[in-house]
Amino acid sequence: MKVLIISADNFEDSELLVPMYRMLEEGYEVYIASIEKGIIIGKKGYEVQPDLALHEVDPSAYDVLILPGGKAPAVIRQNTRALEIARHFMETDKPIGAICHGPQILISAGVMKGRHATCYRLVAEELKGAGAVYEDAEVVVDNNLVTSRIPSDLPYFMRAIMQVVKQ
Amino acid sequence: MKVLIISADNFEDSELLVPMYRMLEEGYEVYIASIEKGIIIGKKGYEVQPDLALHEVDPSAYDVLILPGGKAPAVIRQNTRALEIARHFMETDKPIGAICHGPQILISAGVMKGRHATCYRLVAEELKGAGAVYEDAEVVVDNNLVTSRIPSDLPYFMRAIMQVVKQ
Repeated sequence: MKVLIISADNFEDSELLVPMYRMLEEGYEVYIASIEKGIIIGKKGYEVQPDLALHEVDPSAYDVLILPGGKAPAVIRQNTRALEIARHFMETDKPIGAICHGPQILISAGVMKGRHATCYRLVAEELKGAGAVYEDAEVVVDNNLVTSRIPSDLPYFMRAIMQVVKQ
Repeated sequence: MKVLIISADNFEDSELLVPMYRMLEEGYEVYIASIEKGIIIGKKGYEVQPDLALHEVDPSAYDVLILPGGKAPAVIRQNTRALEIARHFMETDKPIGAICHGPQILISAGVMKGRHATCYRLVAEELKGAGAVYEDAEVVVDNNLVTSRIPSDLPYFMRAIMQVVKQ
């Protein structure tokens, strides 16, 4: 099982690290992709070395997509390659986990119309504006799409992602 | 399943948060105990609200003990109640996970003689001095005792802990 995590500087540290370590615990291969290959630094100061720049990613090679939150999605959503990758996962119904500001990337990819989802409180209006059915819950599962709101939702988020991945 | 995490200010954030979220994902109850009940703050700035002060802990009520690293163990190891709790877990062969500087608490509790273990590099000499058989590995499992060295060992640490807990 190959997992792709897309993020950038100012990621919410726990929202990247917890899924990364959880997937590695499970024995999955985890790949981090960012704008460029240089080290990215989280809001709290954790450093992560990307494996790939976004332009190098072949999304058909990955089984799961994780979109952590923080301030990174505001940058990632402006990257056309990131949006193409997100569309590939949605069109092929492969598991996607997006938390906090992570769903902003899916909004910009134009794939949220009619989908049930949650996100960080301040992103909710934007999510509704993109045609999604917003729910205020620890986790919302809509077929392949798993979304959560904040770091303390991570246990619910990871439990749901592992269930969707193993279906 | 009831999990007890003992830590204090300047904990290594990921070494507390990753086990906490992982255990909650599994459906276990997680309790944080510290010197006092006030909020504790990690080295990177994450805030955690303890459920209990150490003097309130009845160790027989818990099934798993987790000792995260960072600078917290240097303080915790001076707390006689913390050492009594650690001894209870060792004497009753209940699962203990200690990572990074976490094993310092077990050293002060006087329970490492003859036990196979690992720890943060700079703690290794002290661990050997306490009579332990030190190994430089991602994780060392010695019956009920699971130890690791650094945050990037967390996938191995959590995989081993979950196996020991489920035995």
